[in-house]
This record gives sequence, C-alpha cells and structure tokens, in this order.
Amino acid sequence: MDTAKQFGLELTPLQEKVVSDLLRIQDRICNGLEEVDGTKFQEDLWQHKGGGGGRTRVIQGNVFAKGGVNFSVVTGPIPHMMHDRMKAGATRFFATGVSIVIHPVSPKVPIIHMNIRYFESDYGDQWIGGGIDLTPIYVNDQQAKQFHESLKETCDAFSPLYYQSFKELADDYFFIKHRHETRGIGGIFYDYLKPDLHTSMETLWQFNTRVGDTFLKAYLPIVQANKELTYTEEEKQWQLVRRGRYVEFNLVWDKGTLFGLQTGGRIESILMSLPKFASWEYNKEVKEGSAEAHTQARLVKGIDWVNQA
Amino acid sequence: MDTAKQFGLELTPLQEKVVSDLLRIQDRICNGLEEVDGTKFQEDLWQHKGGGGGRTRVIQGNVFAKGGVNFSVVTGPIPHMMHDRMKAGATRFFATGVSIVIHPVSPKVPIIHMNIRYFESDYGDQWIGGGIDLTPIYVNDQQAKQFHESLKETCDAFSPLYYQSFKELADDYFFIKHRHETRGIGGIFYDYLKPDLHTSMETLWQFNTRVGDTFLKAYLPIVQANKELTYTEEEKQWQLVRRGRYVEFNLVWDKGTLFGLQTGGRIESILMSLPKFASWEYNKEVKEGSAEAHTQARLVKGIDWVNQA
Repeated sequence: MDTAKQFGLELTPLQEKVVSDLLRIQDRICNGLEEVDGTKFQEDLWQHKGGGGGRTRVIQGNVFAKGGVNFSVVTGPIPHMMHDRMKAGATRFFATGVSIVIHPVSPKVPIIHMNIRYFESDYGDQWIGGGIDLTPIYVNDQQAKQFHESLKETCDAFSPLYYQSFKELADDYFFIKHRHETRGIGGIFYDYLKPDLHTSMETLWQFNTRVGDTFLKAYLPIVQANKELTYTEEEKQWQLVRRGRYVEFNLVWDKGTLFGLQTGGRIESILMSLPKFASWEYNKEVKEGSAEAHTQARLVKGIDWVNQA
Repeated sequence: MDTAKQFGLELTPLQEKVVSDLLRIQDRICNGLEEVDGTKFQEDLWQHKGGGGGRTRVIQGNVFAKGGVNFSVVTGPIPHMMHDRMKAGATRFFATGVSIVIHPVSPKVPIIHMNIRYFESDYGDQWIGGGIDLTPIYVNDQQAKQFHESLKETCDAFSPLYYQSFKELADDYFFIKHRHETRGIGGIFYDYLKPDLHTSMETLWQFNTRVGDTFLKAYLPIVQANKELTYTEEEKQWQLVRRGRYVEFNLVWDKGTLFGLQTGGRIESILMSLPKFASWEYNKEVKEGSAEAHTQARLVKGIDWVNQA
C-alpha cells in the first residue's frame, strides 16, 4: 500500500490490511466531523525515528474547538513498561492505530475519545486493543443511555459477553484515581485481546473496525441534539474545569500517552488530546441540586446506563 | 508546639524546631506576598489520614492570579517509590515542608516555585531537600542574572560548591523531558542532603531555612519591576501556553506531585500548583526574532546566568 510505504515500512499482508482499514476509518470519521463542523481538518504527515510514522489530522472549528484524529504506524525496541506483556524472546514491536479526542466549543456537547489499535512483537505476540468513552460536561442520562446502547449493539454482534465486560474495564480504566471520580460516563475499553481456539485474529480485527465504524453513529446524534443549545459564562467555566480533569487523567494515568512519551512518539500528535483551554480552581465546589452537582454525582463506576438511565 | 499538636503528632525536639521554622517561613512569605498584592490568603487546615496534616494558604489576587503557600507535616508507611532511598529496616516516614507555586496575572511577571522539606524514617534515615526555580513567560536575561545571584549568595554562605552543584541539579530536575526544554531559567535544587563528618543536621537545616528566607528577596524585586508593565492579548495567550507546559511538568515529571498523589495527600493542596487557566495549541510556532523566540531559545540546560546574562 502506498500510504504505508511512505512511512518506510515493509508490511505483511495482515499488517497491510490493518493499516488500510485504519486509514479508511480515519478518512470516514474526518469526513463526518467536517460535515457537521463546516471546517476542514489540517493534516500533518510525520516520521517516527524508530521506523514508521503517522498522519495527524487536527480540526479547530465552529463546533469542535480542538480535535485530533490521528493515525500512526510505528515500530521500535520494546519499551520497558511493556516487557511483562511479551513473550520472553520479543525485542521489537509493531503498533498501529487510530486515536481520537474531540473537545467541542459548547459545554453542552460532550468530549469524546476513541482508540483502536493493533499490536505485534517480532516473537509472535499479537493482539488488539481499543475503546470509546464519552465525557459530558453536563451528564444527560438519556443521551448516556443512547451512547451505551450504540456500543452494546456493536459488541453484541460479536459476543454476548463483550459489552458488560468491556464496559466494566472502561469504568476502571477511565478513572481519575487521585480524584476518586470517573472521567465521564465511560463506554467500552479492551486490551490484549488475542486470538484463541474460538476466535481468529481476523474476527478480532473485524470487531475493532466495527468499533471504529461505531464512532460517528454513537457521537453525531448527541452533537446534533446539543450543538445549538445556549449556554452561560458559568457553564463555560464549568467546562474549563472539567477539561482540567481531562488533562489530569491524560498526563497522570493514561497508558497510551505514557507509551507515546516513552517510545519517542511525536509530541504534538500525542498531546493533541489536550484542550485549547482548561482551568483549575482551588477547592471548586458545586451548588447542591445544580446541574453541575448532578454531573458530579454521576462520575462513579458501576452505573448501568443502558437499563437505569 | 500548639500548631504541630493540632495535627495530632508527638514531635521530637528537632522535629519541633523544624516545624516551627517552617510555619514562621510560611507566615513571612505570605505577609510579603499579601503586601504586594493587596489581597489576603485564604487558609485551610486539613488532616492527613496516615497522621499529621497541613496549613494550605491560597491567594487569588490582583498581582497573583493563583498562588499557594502550603505547609504540611505528614507521617505514614513508606511508599513503594521511596524504598530504594531508605535503610532496609525503615517502615514509616515523617515528612514536613513548605511548598509554593505562584502564577501571576501578568505575563510579564514570572511564575515561581519553592519547596523546602525535611524527611525522616523510623530507622534513622534523615535528610533535607529543597529548591527554588523561576519560570518567566518572557525571559529577561538581566533579571535572570539577579535571581541566580540571590540564590548563589545564600549558597555561598554555606559552601563554595553548593551553588554550581545545585544549579546543575535544577537544570536536570526542572526539565520537561518529552519537550526537550527546561521549565524556565532554573534555580537551585537539592535532595537527600544528609549530615556527615563535616556537616551537622543543624547546619543543613539552617541552610534550608535560609533558602526559605531567600524567596522574597529573590522574587519580589522582579515582581515590583514588572507588575505595572502593559501587555497584549497575544502575550497573554503565550502565557497560557507556557502555563500549559508547567502543567505538563507537574503532572508527568514532578516527584513531589507523584509522592503526594501516592501517599494520599490532600489533592487540592497538591494540585494548587496548577494555574487557573492554561492552554494547549496544536503545533504552536514562534516568530523568528520575536520575544517568544528569545524565551524559547533560553529554555535549555547549562546557561551560566550569573556570568553570561
């Protein structure tokens, strides 16, 4: 494939397919977001020093204040933090994925994150990982339900166990430990999903591409429903504070960010997940009975959004 | 001492003296900052679950947008990340210190940080640590020289080797590794400074209190010289971006922040170091020959501020 070749890598047929699916998913998502926003993504192609590179796309638009949809395909020596996950003889990794974070202008439109990835070592390790999660500035229970239903539908087509299992993993992963609060209303998260006697790598990869294709279906209806709503200065400030929590999660706890920083990834592509503006207030308290208090109370693990909301 | 007792700790005579010196230093620094700002600090007393507590003071003023001057005295089981530093039999630590971060309103007034601390284990470990460093939004070489001269004067009174050695440690410590840039113009940094045949604990502690007493002398002249200067919207935006880098350092690299998060410290006191507002721009570039470019070029290790500026 030309696009993979331009990153200077020789790919196996499976790697070719994975990369080409990811590039297609990146294209489709960018097109969908551009249509809603009326603004084009800016594209940067970059090379990774260990081998490979990426196609970073950033939007700074009318609906989406700062959003990144990043494709990357990189190889390199296995970083220290990953040794435990590998077979003992592995020395080099191959990793490719699409990673998205969108910070909308309006506090009524939720922040969204998605990541789907494929990983190999040179000693036969092979797995997929991924996830989608939503971070509303103001939690709307009905929209949270819709969002989780979309994810559940995608999961159910592969296994009746996926959704519940991956939803719990998302609650655990997207958790700001030092604040004892979830980042948002969660979603699904999975990692180290490997082929076994019952499931081939092809099926696993198909699942991952379906998650990628669920992004617009799960997110755009919420964007459309909320983007024209008015908001106050106070609601804007609450958004900046919630974005501050997002920064805390990404810089302190997010394994993807740490992996990128440790493997010499392109800083601007890794940290495009950070918002244009964020705020930290000392001892910020929310008024009892307010919409902010409702949101704060929903930032806990274990809510059954599909059935309770 | 009443103030230590109110945190529920029984102190040795040396611990009493250390705590009482730290509280005096906190008072003096707060008074000095209040006088310049015209705004009073807000005080919060808090208890630490493992034992001890703190006296957090926060200013949100006219000159200082968000500043914290925090005293804490805490005990607890030794956290994992500190085991290597201890004698093998140590099980509990005692740590006390004053920690300061000030984010001024004007981009012409530098951000400042100071920390002085005293540490003991229950198995005879005993050391001091500390440091002061300055983060100008716009580097002024003459003021950087003055700042380093103040620190050098304090160091020289104890050892002719201190300043150069601690200045180099500051360059290494206040370094944003993933950006390959220093946080600011550095200052001094030292840790695990232990009594030996030539230097008693009393002398080491005296050095630490002198560093505490250097804070106002090193910082206020720069504040006074710059606080009335006018600035543009563009300069304000550059300040928000530089503050973003400060957030990156504190959340990704700062050992004090990680220590606080790992030992169950009070989150609002640990993260008071974060600015009220910060910004991240994708691929921000500075114009050649601009004041921003001058600052960017000065964010490197190894500048001899005292002699070259």
